[in-house]
Amino acid sequence: MEFWFDFSSPYAFFAAQDVDGLAARHGRSVTWRPFMLAAAFQVTGMSSFSRAPLRGDYGRHDWDRIARAKGIHFALPPFHPYNALHPARTFYWLAASHPDMAKDFALACFAAYFQDGADLRQPDVVADIAADQGAPRDQALAAMAAPQFKECFRQATEEALAKGVFGSPFFLVDGEPFWGWDRLPMVEEWLSGGGW
Amino acid sequence: MEFWFDFSSPYAFFAAQDVDGLAARHGRSVTWRPFMLAAAFQVTGMSSFSRAPLRGDYGRHDWDRIARAKGIHFALPPFHPYNALHPARTFYWLAASHPDMAKDFALACFAAYFQDGADLRQPDVVADIAADQGAPRDQALAAMAAPQFKECFRQATEEALAKGVFGSPFFLVDGEPFWGWDRLPMVEEWLSGGGW
Repeated sequence: MEFWFDFSSPYAFFAAQDVDGLAARHGRSVTWRPFMLAAAFQVTGMSSFSRAPLRGDYGRHDWDRIARAKGIHFALPPFHPYNALHPARTFYWLAASHPDMAKDFALACFAAYFQDGADLRQPDVVADIAADQGAPRDQALAAMAAPQFKECFRQATEEALAKGVFGSPFFLVDGEPFWGWDRLPMVEEWLSGGGW
Repeated sequence: MEFWFDFSSPYAFFAAQDVDGLAARHGRSVTWRPFMLAAAFQVTGMSSFSRAPLRGDYGRHDWDRIARAKGIHFALPPFHPYNALHPARTFYWLAASHPDMAKDFALACFAAYFQDGADLRQPDVVADIAADQGAPRDQALAAMAAPQFKECFRQATEEALAKGVFGSPFFLVDGEPFWGWDRLPMVEEWLSGGGW
């Protein structure tokens, strides 16, 4: 199954904690696919949840209670939301060059941003996280600036839109689409052969 | 607890089937509150799910599979979405004059529209549904045109926005907000004293 997300999405942060475990319970593996949610917003006429009147307040309340329910720390950085191009480009570089590090890097980025307030707009900060996973720091910095991984991220975003992915997180299970963190129970039902 | 909805919302149709039973399992009752979702969209910058690129296709796929999962008939009318002011005004008239009929009327409107393709833009069609519940048909028609119930619906929409309600369905459990049909399991956890 595929897990599509934007690194700046709080609901993707929560989904990232559980999606691999959920899939594994049903003998499935998960391909993680960062994409640029803002590009999907342009197509669908949606806007950032965090910034919208009413929805932003609901989101902040909701993220805090989900964190409490899951017993994990959550602290939205003051500069939320951000353009997560550096984590995404680095992710695609790792997926190509050090595939065993890519998911741990993504989880570490989510934790750095949503739990420790790290400023992932800064390439240096993202490179440190890649280095923590054992990747060469200078190559990470080079990858973030390389046309190749910029293009990789752009193509991933195009692929997302072509597949009908318009939100974050978004799950495709053998092509069957599920939008939103709150659909993980339905994904699990589907994997259990719900039959509907 | 409060159940806020727009009569034109497919996810509200599904929620309407279950919300009273869910509440009753926890010794609670539900106050049904139609409001004008389009007014909330203006505040939050959202747009109609059904009409948006990508989201509309996802919605139609999702509603069909939810209906299959629940084993109920669902057929989106070709003129979906519609401005549900007549069902809403009639609902508030019934809530004031024949309160025991209001919920059954609402359920009958949902079924007429989402299962039988009835055109609830027509006052005559809505009046027939009210009459089926035992309400005086001519009074229903008069209520739909009366400034009093137009105002009632407007005030309900204002109250919704003041309470942070921006989507349909939306649940308030002692003030705790839950947006979306897919949050009913979380509402149930909350009512069970989830404690988070």
